[in-house]
Amino acid sequence: MSYSATVTPQGPGSSNAQDARRKQILAAARACFARSGFHGASMGQICSEAAMSPGALYRYFPSKDSIIEAIAEEERIGAGECMEIFFGKGSLVDRLVLSAMDYLEKSIAEATGGLMIEIVSESIRNTAIGERFHAIESDVRSTIRAALDEAQKTGEIGADVDLDIALVMLLAVGDGLVMRLQLERRVDLGAMEPYLRRMIAAILAGAERAS
Amino acid sequence: MSYSATVTPQGPGSSNAQDARRKQILAAARACFARSGFHGASMGQICSEAAMSPGALYRYFPSKDSIIEAIAEEERIGAGECMEIFFGKGSLVDRLVLSAMDYLEKSIAEATGGLMIEIVSESIRNTAIGERFHAIESDVRSTIRAALDEAQKTGEIGADVDLDIALVMLLAVGDGLVMRLQLERRVDLGAMEPYLRRMIAAILAGAERAS
Repeated sequence: MSYSATVTPQGPGSSNAQDARRKQILAAARACFARSGFHGASMGQICSEAAMSPGALYRYFPSKDSIIEAIAEEERIGAGECMEIFFGKGSLVDRLVLSAMDYLEKSIAEATGGLMIEIVSESIRNTAIGERFHAIESDVRSTIRAALDEAQKTGEIGADVDLDIALVMLLAVGDGLVMRLQLERRVDLGAMEPYLRRMIAAILAGAERAS
Repeated sequence: MSYSATVTPQGPGSSNAQDARRKQILAAARACFARSGFHGASMGQICSEAAMSPGALYRYFPSKDSIIEAIAEEERIGAGECMEIFFGKGSLVDRLVLSAMDYLEKSIAEATGGLMIEIVSESIRNTAIGERFHAIESDVRSTIRAALDEAQKTGEIGADVDLDIALVMLLAVGDGLVMRLQLERRVDLGAMEPYLRRMIAAILAGAERAS
């Protein structure tokens, strides 16, 4: 039986097998991009990392751009999950801590949190790839900003807190921790949680409540 | 008069002019590396950014490696200046805030703080370039860690604070802010200072003092 007979032109196997194959390719691509950058990594490297022939891989993704687009979509879904946690119950600090912990856990578990560095790099350089990922961040940002506005109205955040600055500080803490966890893999994430909580509380307390 | 007659083989002009030329090349190289990465940027691009001929540039730096080495040396000197501020007067929080602000100001002023992203990227990938810069960070890290140890002995830091975690959090805040300031150039650094101060104080307070 020839290879082309086992895989019909209509699509490579069942839907489940297809999904698994797609995920396998995207995981391989993430590893390659984290290692060599979006520009540096080639389709050949991704094939080799995924242990697939170019012919098989191209049936799922016709170009590197289409792979990057699929990774952006995964990131959008991941950000959406974080935001769902953020919209759960509890105080604003609780919800920020919970969603930050979810974000940090994902960044470690995927073992390709290094990709975040590449994404930031593209964002700073203002490339097309950077803009694609920047759009995802913009959504997260607007969501958190709206929650900060609301919390200041209800008095949960100090009246003297500048919400633009608070937002930048919160995002900086998130970025910085993702980066640090890549550099220092021995750090226990759970043990960091109370420190993260006190930092977030300090950002949102403002000068009046802190003093 | 030929070009080779105006510049003697012994060296290109006076020491001051040489220093200025060297700085000009390194600034151009930083911009190129921030834009295209350490691997992506070519000597040709650096020449063109510095508006110098390859012949003139090679007289100062025979290779890209020698340029990277000179940038690492600049970074080492910059880190040393930060640490000098850190060893000034005041409480530990004061000194951490002052040195962090100096670090952040430098990262903006040079307009190539984007280079930090490249350096982190190399560190995560564990390349030779990454190791070179990592050595600089190790020194800063040991210095801060020793100060934390001392401060916990004198009671300036809460007895229940895990200094390994506190150090990672402090470094993460620094990294995250450098990155964020590259992405959001409109943010006023001075206005961020009180937030940074409260965050650092929160990290060092520990659970007992914070509650």
